[in-house]
Amino acid sequence: MTERRAFSRRGLLGAAGAAVATGVAGYAAHSALAGEESQATDTTGPVEFHGTHQAGIVTPAQDRLHFATFDVTTDKREAVISLLKEWTAAAALITAGRDIGQYGAVNGPGEAPPEDTGEAVGLPSARLTITIGFGPSFFVDAKGNDRFGLKGKRPAALVDLPHFIGDNLDPNRSGGDIAVQACSDDPQVAVHAIRNLARIGFGTVAVRYSQLGFGRTSSTSRAQTTPRNLFGFKDGTNNLKLEDTAKLEQQLWVQPEDGPDWMVGGSYLVSRRIRMTIETWDRTSLSEQEVIVGRGKGTGAPLGKAEEFDPIDFEAKNSDGELKIAKEAHIRLAHPQFNNGAELLRRGYNFVDGSDGLGRLDAGLFFLAYQRDPRKQFIPVQRQLARSDVMNEYIRHVGSGIFACPGGVTPGSYWGEKLFA
Amino acid sequence: MTERRAFSRRGLLGAAGAAVATGVAGYAAHSALAGEESQATDTTGPVEFHGTHQAGIVTPAQDRLHFATFDVTTDKREAVISLLKEWTAAAALITAGRDIGQYGAVNGPGEAPPEDTGEAVGLPSARLTITIGFGPSFFVDAKGNDRFGLKGKRPAALVDLPHFIGDNLDPNRSGGDIAVQACSDDPQVAVHAIRNLARIGFGTVAVRYSQLGFGRTSSTSRAQTTPRNLFGFKDGTNNLKLEDTAKLEQQLWVQPEDGPDWMVGGSYLVSRRIRMTIETWDRTSLSEQEVIVGRGKGTGAPLGKAEEFDPIDFEAKNSDGELKIAKEAHIRLAHPQFNNGAELLRRGYNFVDGSDGLGRLDAGLFFLAYQRDPRKQFIPVQRQLARSDVMNEYIRHVGSGIFACPGGVTPGSYWGEKLFA
Repeated sequence: MTERRAFSRRGLLGAAGAAVATGVAGYAAHSALAGEESQATDTTGPVEFHGTHQAGIVTPAQDRLHFATFDVTTDKREAVISLLKEWTAAAALITAGRDIGQYGAVNGPGEAPPEDTGEAVGLPSARLTITIGFGPSFFVDAKGNDRFGLKGKRPAALVDLPHFIGDNLDPNRSGGDIAVQACSDDPQVAVHAIRNLARIGFGTVAVRYSQLGFGRTSSTSRAQTTPRNLFGFKDGTNNLKLEDTAKLEQQLWVQPEDGPDWMVGGSYLVSRRIRMTIETWDRTSLSEQEVIVGRGKGTGAPLGKAEEFDPIDFEAKNSDGELKIAKEAHIRLAHPQFNNGAELLRRGYNFVDGSDGLGRLDAGLFFLAYQRDPRKQFIPVQRQLARSDVMNEYIRHVGSGIFACPGGVTPGSYWGEKLFA
Repeated sequence: MTERRAFSRRGLLGAAGAAVATGVAGYAAHSALAGEESQATDTTGPVEFHGTHQAGIVTPAQDRLHFATFDVTTDKREAVISLLKEWTAAAALITAGRDIGQYGAVNGPGEAPPEDTGEAVGLPSARLTITIGFGPSFFVDAKGNDRFGLKGKRPAALVDLPHFIGDNLDPNRSGGDIAVQACSDDPQVAVHAIRNLARIGFGTVAVRYSQLGFGRTSSTSRAQTTPRNLFGFKDGTNNLKLEDTAKLEQQLWVQPEDGPDWMVGGSYLVSRRIRMTIETWDRTSLSEQEVIVGRGKGTGAPLGKAEEFDPIDFEAKNSDGELKIAKEAHIRLAHPQFNNGAELLRRGYNFVDGSDGLGRLDAGLFFLAYQRDPRKQFIPVQRQLARSDVMNEYIRHVGSGIFACPGGVTPGSYWGEKLFA
């Protein structure tokens, strides 16, 4: 474990002052020293925060997630802009493996709250990325009123998601004005990120809901192995990958011709909290499970094939004339070939949130998918799945969100600057 | 990432049979092959399941936790014994990095549910340990009736915990007939363990509650660095450590003179779900935080000292005559010097379980502490803390449990065999 740079110089002065008064043993001095080691020994290296696109979308999916949505509690446009500036500066620091320095009131030596909550001191950046998106309710309130003078800038693609067959959505786990996705290989680092953004946002935003994901269920790079979801199956074999650069322009990134300008280089995020009734699934036969998915459970290969990445043959039949991949197999219904070519970049996570009071684990998949236009991608694909997927006997969509995630941040800019311009 | 041995030979036959029928691509065959690699490349190595003491107590604290308690839903003593035998065999397999082979009905080729739920296929053991304990309600029901002929075997030390000042316990997050603590460096492996025990227990036990912990808050070995809790402070600096072998006999392990026989070599676990109001804490000044804890936030050193492991001087005063470590500092109130020498082996975890509907993260510390006799250790220490600790302004105990964890399992034996003997 390596030490990260701790408090800012301003924090250092505060703490050093406090040391005189209370006998504090050089918090900032110690940490600043240790920070030097951090740069040398953190072999995984921080993920660059600035760029054409936001980090945390095609970034090779990290192992852990802390996702939260926030409700804006102010009606002041300037307060929202200030918050986004503060958040952007904080995100640039913590994704670089540094602590937050310039936040929090400083009233005197040691008399201010620490400028960083501290639980990530001593931890490397662990590839932390922080990705932001704006929900429909950020633009207009429930009555359709303009909230921050942004009504006219709402992208046409940022639709309210329709009701899908079987949806059983908890409003307390759905929606939100602003979504923040923090991904890291260390959950403590991801939690620290969301917690500090919430702290900075006190008085301007409030956490609407928060979701931890303990294990990634998708790869977003060919360099990664395909992980398993809580059905025990490899998930995301045919996911869009960062190496598919041409396809990413077609399927993932908003193009100049799509508009609005502020979304160019951005992407739309759909989040779905999908509860899995794993107790029922676990009592389903292996062959039934494989027929439902359309893949072998061990290898992840399409049924009738030997290896995970073997091309899928949707026409192949067994000797008895039955399709090897059933008509309603999940991989058929979700495949671009049967969805007008629509693809998604998925980067979902397994979750277990305690139990449900009925002796069952509250477990499932926190589905996150990025795309160029939900009207042509998530919505029609999910309509088809909601209608026909046999897997629906074992899952239930209980939370939902849609967010417009703008393009990347350049140094000196802030999240959403073009939106407010 | 290494492959672990997948399904048993019995599972293999089932899957191979299914392959003929449905075109499955050799799940078991592939996995069995990959299992050979597992032994060679898993450098961290599995933690030995068998021994004098249960693993997962002094084992160097792993990074992640999945803890669950179960209610027994049968009144049949034999069914409980069968379950404990099945669980023990399963735990021995999965802690060795193997999948569970011999569980689940096999009705024909591929027509049985998989004998392992599969989400940990491909993952190493990641130092998985599974530790079991029995709560007071395992011995007698709410009316004091003997449940499984064990009433006379309830240890005197397995008391019902008293009400402590400030307790705000949720019954749905407290108690339980049986507790299972799964710790691993990989959360997917810990989740897999609890989920499979729940699956095996279907019809005999039901999950009462389940708790994930994403980051350890204690070290149990001098070889480990001290981690930080969600107050941002190093936690557990003076924890009992596995290297303190003489002290472990005094403080941790039940001795022959303590009785009952079935608990010799075992230990008592107290679990407390401690909600932290981190939003309030985050607005408290650094010096106030340090005074409350009694340590510097950065270094973890006792106030007035330079280094984390410097001995604490509880008499030292500042030039103005004030105690450097305040009279009601947490480290003073909890210290053995002020608790008749009582110590605990703590192995708690940070948690964030979404948000609380009031815009705040539902975050805190899932406290786990092992000890030789709670009547002399946890209870008096917590009485003193509940009465005087200023930290109580920032925490609330919302869940509680106490469990008798028997001594270790020898090969051929099962969890609790001596209890049922």
